[in-house]
Amino acid sequence: MLTYDLEQRGDNTIYEYLYRCIKLDILDGTLTAGSKLPSKRKFAKHHQVSLKTIENAYEQLLTEGYIYSEEKRGYFVSPLETDTGVRQARHQNHIPFSVCGSKAPSPAPLLPASDSKSSAFFADFTSNQTATEKFPYDTWAKLLRGILSEGNRSLLEKLPFEGLYELRVSIAKYLYGFRGMQVSPDQIVVGAGTEYLCGQLISLLGRDLIYALEDPGYRKTAQIYRTNGASYEYIRVDENGLCPDLLRESPASVVHVSPGHHFPTGSIMPVARRQALLEWAEESAGRYIIEDDYDSEFRFSRRPIPAIQSLRHNHRVIYMNTFSKTLTPAIQIGYMVLPNKLAERYLSAMSRYSCTASTLEQHALAAFMDNGYFERHIHRMKKYYKAKRDCMLDVLEQSRLYPYVTIDEKDAGSHFLMHLHTPLSDTELKWLARENGVRLDCLSEYYAEDKAQRAHTIIVNYSGLEEADFRKALDVLLLAV
Amino acid sequence: MLTYDLEQRGDNTIYEYLYRCIKLDILDGTLTAGSKLPSKRKFAKHHQVSLKTIENAYEQLLTEGYIYSEEKRGYFVSPLETDTGVRQARHQNHIPFSVCGSKAPSPAPLLPASDSKSSAFFADFTSNQTATEKFPYDTWAKLLRGILSEGNRSLLEKLPFEGLYELRVSIAKYLYGFRGMQVSPDQIVVGAGTEYLCGQLISLLGRDLIYALEDPGYRKTAQIYRTNGASYEYIRVDENGLCPDLLRESPASVVHVSPGHHFPTGSIMPVARRQALLEWAEESAGRYIIEDDYDSEFRFSRRPIPAIQSLRHNHRVIYMNTFSKTLTPAIQIGYMVLPNKLAERYLSAMSRYSCTASTLEQHALAAFMDNGYFERHIHRMKKYYKAKRDCMLDVLEQSRLYPYVTIDEKDAGSHFLMHLHTPLSDTELKWLARENGVRLDCLSEYYAEDKAQRAHTIIVNYSGLEEADFRKALDVLLLAV
Repeated sequence: MLTYDLEQRGDNTIYEYLYRCIKLDILDGTLTAGSKLPSKRKFAKHHQVSLKTIENAYEQLLTEGYIYSEEKRGYFVSPLETDTGVRQARHQNHIPFSVCGSKAPSPAPLLPASDSKSSAFFADFTSNQTATEKFPYDTWAKLLRGILSEGNRSLLEKLPFEGLYELRVSIAKYLYGFRGMQVSPDQIVVGAGTEYLCGQLISLLGRDLIYALEDPGYRKTAQIYRTNGASYEYIRVDENGLCPDLLRESPASVVHVSPGHHFPTGSIMPVARRQALLEWAEESAGRYIIEDDYDSEFRFSRRPIPAIQSLRHNHRVIYMNTFSKTLTPAIQIGYMVLPNKLAERYLSAMSRYSCTASTLEQHALAAFMDNGYFERHIHRMKKYYKAKRDCMLDVLEQSRLYPYVTIDEKDAGSHFLMHLHTPLSDTELKWLARENGVRLDCLSEYYAEDKAQRAHTIIVNYSGLEEADFRKALDVLLLAV
Repeated sequence: MLTYDLEQRGDNTIYEYLYRCIKLDILDGTLTAGSKLPSKRKFAKHHQVSLKTIENAYEQLLTEGYIYSEEKRGYFVSPLETDTGVRQARHQNHIPFSVCGSKAPSPAPLLPASDSKSSAFFADFTSNQTATEKFPYDTWAKLLRGILSEGNRSLLEKLPFEGLYELRVSIAKYLYGFRGMQVSPDQIVVGAGTEYLCGQLISLLGRDLIYALEDPGYRKTAQIYRTNGASYEYIRVDENGLCPDLLRESPASVVHVSPGHHFPTGSIMPVARRQALLEWAEESAGRYIIEDDYDSEFRFSRRPIPAIQSLRHNHRVIYMNTFSKTLTPAIQIGYMVLPNKLAERYLSAMSRYSCTASTLEQHALAAFMDNGYFERHIHRMKKYYKAKRDCMLDVLEQSRLYPYVTIDEKDAGSHFLMHLHTPLSDTELKWLARENGVRLDCLSEYYAEDKAQRAHTIIVNYSGLEEADFRKALDVLLLAV
């Protein structure tokens, strides 16, 4: 008769222990396929344990398929692939690989995680991270705590796929007030960031289409299209943004543009060109304009630029924006505004899906907007970025590098372009900077074509840069001139 | 000279008002392309406003492209498409479509949202919604409030794409304790739900592959593959789960299975078949098993079933699960465990992407798990679902329908199968139920092939059903026998 030493069971219940012992005997071949297990009654008597204990152990083995039963004949070992390695491991470590019941083992033998590399740069011009120190954390936390204290259990229910209705109303009001857009909350879809939403949009419009992307432009935009299996073509961007004539010559039927504040050139698309894009969209069925309004809020002076979506004939315009740039990257809430017909099609197709953005944070964001905190925050950030930019330009003017640079900046956003009069190629320039602790990207890297003509222009994202580090970094760049 | 009545400007600043008036005059053709605007100085004097005011208005029009400037000649109207509709609208409503400065108009003329339809069903057998009333809301809220009160500004920083490290450690410990899986936090990727993660996985593994899906199976799984542009084939599921022999005959290189608790049949895959799947994966390079462990936690008796990922040769297994089923659908946090090589490839490709799950909720979830609340909650839910199931089966036994049904249930999850002895087809059955206020799905609908043989079996999701409604619904079904 099978015999197991119950004294060895440690913290395990008897049923668990017996289940594991038999399982290991099956896996290492001690109990061979087809061999009969003792009857439950005899086995219980033999070990002086209750019949129920044995029943539980056998039942578990049965459910997992280690044994099978035949009516009136008893329990038999299933034919399985066996492993002598199990036997060795078992000798070294009583129960090497196991599932515990209600108690987690302590300490858990986790496999170690690798260390993250520490940064070797004292100045990073490439990070366009939002400056989170200006975010009104206390206000945000107070709103969240307030929502939690209301004890509203609707916080636990599944939201509609398109997001919290209250938030969509707040967004519609904001868009009316600040972007000249007259849209219904029904047209708005909220999700966990624009990277996610852009993927959804590609699914909705189709992977068989050709998408037109800006050249130069955000490299991540192209990555999103690639990751989502969509084909794209680059269309040249001149000082007024994407060229509609070149778009018309391409086979693309959807164009992804950032008319409000183009990255990295910083250009703003004039209204005539916006109209030309709308005309292009009207010329053929199924054409769309994706208006990526990322980073358009931070214009330092005067009024915000109206969105393409606010112009006439906007039924081919899909507007996108995110709060992770304006608030903090920790709040992964983005949204898009779809033309009515597209919104209907999308929502009926996705009705069984879940909204990816946090329910709690959607409630908090609606309150944040409705109470005017969002508006005030944008205002504060504009002043902050403007002061930061002014400070950086001052540092530059006072530096020995100043005679060798030309600045191109558009009174907006959190970066400017710095053309450097240097004999080095961009690759050499980057290498020299990196060797001396400065991380930078050149404008030429953002061009798919025509890289050479755009050489020697550094993109300076200053939102995360310290004044002293910038000064030091400019000294490094002196080595290049 | 252009003249505008400044008395009409309402709440607007003079600069905003003049900007809008000129813009509307351009758009409706009153000011024609190429016509010259008054000089800033003369225009300011004429309206008795400061030069700065006019400069701001002109500058805004210039930035948006409505006018252009020529050196030493002045400002001219750009050639644009004009619209007589603007003129009409303007007469009806002083400034019909406009962008405001720092003040949002009140009330905002939002386009109305459509009403959502109210449900016509008194009993819905199709909803497998998590019963949120058992969720320990107070504990959850307390944890969140505690995290917020710590004032830890790291809550505002961007998380790594793969999610909060502390949460990944908590998940690794849980998987070790309850699923027999020995994994490193480095292998775990956290994201906003499994629908999102599954899409990511398709991008990672490739859209050119063929994926094998269970027949029958969750319809949403197929929808996710379709939405993400991936090809799939159905593989028959018998009483032990997906058939490896049929899989071997198919051209699929990745199989998506739910061995822990198959929907809708409720079957648990025996270990021999799990081994057979692992063997299949070993036979050819690039093969993977996606182990979808959704809903596997709610086994009413005995031990949890170990995951395929916990078996030997698990380097071709991708494990997936979500907290939105175990906790509440409002917490959109799912995760996947990738084999080491795949994890490295994925994380290096996606390093610039953002983590889609809420930072705050990831912190709270880590604390929830580390303090044993998660384990206790699962335990409580198992008892709750078991009691609910027992209650439903009692109602059924006492009903007049009982002689006409056969129940198939696997002591787990939150649904059972009810075979009805009826002469009606499934379509007629559904129609009859719907006409009488009962919403139901039949097992046959979950089959891609062989629907007819599975007729007359109703899927009863009981987690959201009230006892009295269920009793009434059974009376409705009496009409079918």
